[in-house]
Amino acid sequence: LASKLPWVGTTIFTVMSKLAAETGAINLSQGFPGFDCSPELVKLVEKYLKTGFNQYAPMTGVPALREALAQKTEDLYGISYHPETEITVTSGATEALFAAITAVIRPGDEVLVFEPAYDSYVPAIELNGGIPVLVTLTPPDYTIDWETVRGKITDKTRLILVNTPHNPTGRVWTADDLAQLAALVKDRDIWIVSDEVYEHIRFDGRPHQSLATHPVLQERTFVCGSFGKTFHITGWKIGYCLAPKALTTEFRKIHQYLTFSTVTPIQHALADYLKNPVHYETLPDFYERKRNLFLESLRGSRFQFRPTEGSFFQTVSYQAITDEPDYDLAIRLTKEIGVASIPVSVFYRARNDYRILRFCFAKDDDTLLRAGERLSRL
Amino acid sequence: LASKLPWVGTTIFTVMSKLAAETGAINLSQGFPGFDCSPELVKLVEKYLKTGFNQYAPMTGVPALREALAQKTEDLYGISYHPETEITVTSGATEALFAAITAVIRPGDEVLVFEPAYDSYVPAIELNGGIPVLVTLTPPDYTIDWETVRGKITDKTRLILVNTPHNPTGRVWTADDLAQLAALVKDRDIWIVSDEVYEHIRFDGRPHQSLATHPVLQERTFVCGSFGKTFHITGWKIGYCLAPKALTTEFRKIHQYLTFSTVTPIQHALADYLKNPVHYETLPDFYERKRNLFLESLRGSRFQFRPTEGSFFQTVSYQAITDEPDYDLAIRLTKEIGVASIPVSVFYRARNDYRILRFCFAKDDDTLLRAGERLSRL
Ligand SMILES: CSCCC(=O)C(=O)O
Ligand SMILES: CSCCC(=O)C(=O)O
Repeated sequence: LASKLPWVGTTIFTVMSKLAAETGAINLSQGFPGFDCSPELVKLVEKYLKTGFNQYAPMTGVPALREALAQKTEDLYGISYHPETEITVTSGATEALFAAITAVIRPGDEVLVFEPAYDSYVPAIELNGGIPVLVTLTPPDYTIDWETVRGKITDKTRLILVNTPHNPTGRVWTADDLAQLAALVKDRDIWIVSDEVYEHIRFDGRPHQSLATHPVLQERTFVCGSFGKTFHITGWKIGYCLAPKALTTEFRKIHQYLTFSTVTPIQHALADYLKNPVHYETLPDFYERKRNLFLESLRGSRFQFRPTEGSFFQTVSYQAITDEPDYDLAIRLTKEIGVASIPVSVFYRARNDYRILRFCFAKDDDTLLRAGERLSRL
Repeated sequence: LASKLPWVGTTIFTVMSKLAAETGAINLSQGFPGFDCSPELVKLVEKYLKTGFNQYAPMTGVPALREALAQKTEDLYGISYHPETEITVTSGATEALFAAITAVIRPGDEVLVFEPAYDSYVPAIELNGGIPVLVTLTPPDYTIDWETVRGKITDKTRLILVNTPHNPTGRVWTADDLAQLAALVKDRDIWIVSDEVYEHIRFDGRPHQSLATHPVLQERTFVCGSFGKTFHITGWKIGYCLAPKALTTEFRKIHQYLTFSTVTPIQHALADYLKNPVHYETLPDFYERKRNLFLESLRGSRFQFRPTEGSFFQTVSYQAITDEPDYDLAIRLTKEIGVASIPVSVFYRARNDYRILRFCFAKDDDTLLRAGERLSRL
């Protein structure tokens, strides 16, 4: 069987998590919390499991969950998405991203992707026959040069992939970024897929700039979100897509044949849990403390870094310490020092190696302190 | 946004289930159990939910579940699939089918599909640029004319879609069907996707003829299965794919970007539950009783039928009663008589209307008796 994705091997997340498990290293590689979700949320799932909510949910998602999402979006950003026609629950944000890209892209269409980029965007584009057009962002600030972006837009550009807060760099889009993008797409047939799964994880008082908050962008954007990062339930795989009616209509035609629907008792539980804003309003502070703790513990090391703006990832530069490629260093740190990370070059198609590692700080304080101590030995 | 699936509207399952809910009709349309899963299985999920199994499962599935699936396949059919490299857990069989089709099909490839066909096959083929080549099966026996199939195979044929036990007709493949298919594909670069979600639901002593049991077929087949129909948990959306290593490698490259992984606590619970064969061995008798009960209650009616061979669907012909198109009759029966069904024409691309309705008998005895009584009034 000839491969449709010949360049895809085992994902780095699997490689590093496995190596961490085998070597007993502290696993700061794959992005998932090292602690459990709230017992209150578990109790809600149990309630629905026990009372017979175990058959197919509606294809679009359980109405109560779509309504809770509409309410939250209205409360936080003052934007209205209609739960009947503009909100769809998916099997994680990964499915939402794949469905949105599939709804838009035909063979030959060009898609702008900012690199470094989460690893699922480019394969999803290519499986639909699309052509990824890469815009490279470089450390340390990873800011977007909008003139470069403008220069890459052609008549074939059909879609732009956005991710804020950004994985792996932690960068958070500003109001100016939104305005720049809006000016670019304004009179063109260009759609946007915005990966906003770290919506509630941003620091130092920075607001989340959802693409939905800008009218020019809102009308052409599929906002992809997730509960995994927000409620410490990456293993439950529930995400969603917010998009204007015409876009949602096409999105659902794809979602229907990708997975049809998503775990019913969990959807009901999330609908209840989401009604209390405290469950997500506390998240910035919760993770800012962890970020600060981790960075404090790294101060004794020779790594260089700027405090991450959002997401639960911190990137660090090690150019002052060694000249090793980041992939090699990530492996060596896991084996010799006992801390697993992700080499940031894997997020670039051409494996640009800026000598940067990514650490996930969604871990117990104790784990973070121990990791910092070990890393300071290098 | 121009539609990639312009001919797709709201799925018939949503339409009929909604109409049933609105009119208070007995819902024998969409295929899901009208009763709950076992409390023992719910308890197992609770156990894992409560003890911190709430983060990402491995992309390929929880090892214990893959091992339990390997053991079951070995025990039932004497076939070995390696849990590390040949078994993948998915977000329902729908995702498994989409991933397998996507792994194989490139633009211009032809795919043989037997009609009537489950509604997700053709869109999945078309989204990958494939060309569905339809082989029509006609009532009452829906047997496959293998000469016709042979005549439809060309140099471009890359895949054949199989479904046994068959939705909507209930037909179960025979050993002869397997031999015929094997003779056809033997020396060709043709792969097979086999939808076997009703594996444990077949009647009158008929064995399930998994395509994996024939060596010529096994080496080129993606067997797609599901726990939804077997354990009365259609709302939990856990399926799987069994395929030889080379096929699984490509399958996983797609699965990784479609959904990445599937609900962790449920996977662990299913691994435990699957170890007791009584949980699926009792299923044929359980549903044969329901089929017989439903048919008994229909004897007073003017519907014509042959007892279904497998699946939890019974098709009936109403030519002796009225000349209405099946779609119209399905709507009218829901509104006037209070029983919702699925018109079988929707499973044909060209909407061939043989005047057949499909009823799901995965319902409480009482519900089935009441439905039979109402239907006998027609
Ligand atoms: C789906 S596994 C990857 C998790 C993640 O978002 C990351 O580590 O970047
Ligand atoms: C995924 S909804 C359809 C359920 C089903 O398998 C059927 O009714 O045929």
